[in-house]
Amino acid sequence: MTDADTGVTHDAFLGGRLTLRQPRQGYRAGVDPVLLAASVPATPGQRILDVGCGVGTAMLCLHARVPDLSLTGVEVQADYAALARLNAADNNADAVVHTADLTDLPDAVRQQTYDHVIMNPPYFDRGAGAAAADPGRDLGRGGPVGLSAWLDCGIRRVRPKGTLTVIHPAGQLDLILSTLFGRLGSMQVRPLSARAGRAPNLVIVQARHGGRAPLALAAPLVLHAGAIHNDDRPDYTPQIAAILRDGTKLPMQD
Amino acid sequence: MTDADTGVTHDAFLGGRLTLRQPRQGYRAGVDPVLLAASVPATPGQRILDVGCGVGTAMLCLHARVPDLSLTGVEVQADYAALARLNAADNNADAVVHTADLTDLPDAVRQQTYDHVIMNPPYFDRGAGAAAADPGRDLGRGGPVGLSAWLDCGIRRVRPKGTLTVIHPAGQLDLILSTLFGRLGSMQVRPLSARAGRAPNLVIVQARHGGRAPLALAAPLVLHAGAIHNDDRPDYTPQIAAILRDGTKLPMQD
Repeated sequence: MTDADTGVTHDAFLGGRLTLRQPRQGYRAGVDPVLLAASVPATPGQRILDVGCGVGTAMLCLHARVPDLSLTGVEVQADYAALARLNAADNNADAVVHTADLTDLPDAVRQQTYDHVIMNPPYFDRGAGAAAADPGRDLGRGGPVGLSAWLDCGIRRVRPKGTLTVIHPAGQLDLILSTLFGRLGSMQVRPLSARAGRAPNLVIVQARHGGRAPLALAAPLVLHAGAIHNDDRPDYTPQIAAILRDGTKLPMQD
Repeated sequence: MTDADTGVTHDAFLGGRLTLRQPRQGYRAGVDPVLLAASVPATPGQRILDVGCGVGTAMLCLHARVPDLSLTGVEVQADYAALARLNAADNNADAVVHTADLTDLPDAVRQQTYDHVIMNPPYFDRGAGAAAADPGRDLGRGGPVGLSAWLDCGIRRVRPKGTLTVIHPAGQLDLILSTLFGRLGSMQVRPLSARAGRAPNLVIVQARHGGRAPLALAAPLVLHAGAIHNDDRPDYTPQIAAILRDGTKLPMQD
């Protein structure tokens, strides 16, 4: 379905449990925010902060699985934030969406902590040389907000015993773990592979405020069945299909 | 075979390519140092430093695969260091083994850098609370030397373009990556699982001095075939059997 006048599409998620307005052009949610939401150990009544929420895909997927959540979204692009508000209202979610930069949060967010902070940061290419740089340095002045700034923002907003969950390319696992280390604990890392036996291209990392358990590295979840992609039909593995279509939980440990 | 008088056994590694004297009591090499050695991208003529070399298992496995290496071992326990010297001589390796603490290296090592530094640190239990501690703090004064001190020692001894490789429980991947981050680059992480689909219990982490590539997370290598261990026969997967018995290389990327 398309709003011809506005360039907005209406797209079904979670087997139709959720319909979201998205801009026809620009960033459109794929499976990443759905998998992110599926991994969050939220229970009814908890407070959620979705950093860089876009049109609200991750937090609204979480809302579809866990009732009575209090959702807060922060989104720097006003048009996405506006769609997130509409999407929340359409889906009867208790949500407040702030149009704000994550490095300059409004007081209402900065003075609050959350049971679960979630984020699906853009795949910012740090480029050659940055791999060995200081964790703080990838935030260029005036440039795009780097991954470590996203994580810093999230870490500060997690309440005691609460969690931070991030989905991101595996190539920045070193930056992610280094930024979390010593600040959140009980880290859980779930790699995601496109095909069985392939190198994982994404990771979900979840860490707990005050957690003291050793890191738990899980086996990769495999997204697609078969060795190659043969046609345009989705060929998700049964476990991933259950998450994407039935809204089941994604286990962070085996 | 056993030296009854000395409490030393003679054990075959790499399908008999290598025979090593080991104390009958105390630490005895399992598969870890063999897998460690198999992952090192050494070429003939290079200099190797084995930090905490024990009886020399890892460096001598590497010597069995790559000719003309110059081996240096550091081992704090004099009886293990003495066996490492005998083992090197028995196997015609060009090796110098120093009896020394890795936090107080002899000048001959401290003034040198190496093409490849390898280490198989003891599984020191950091215990509750340490998971969220500062990387430097796990080295207690007078207590056991912590993992971060092992890594610090190794990082300082890697020459430009050289590598550091460590095998360790996956539960300390956060400490490992955090300690390496910003000092070595082009990290490669190879998880090792006991059985297919199980959470990896070990990781091999390899990083390069001056490396600028993003981290490469590989799929887990599975050690044992089948779902459970049925009897006392080794049930290694073909790839692991080839590494352990034929001395083949362990690929760090898929």
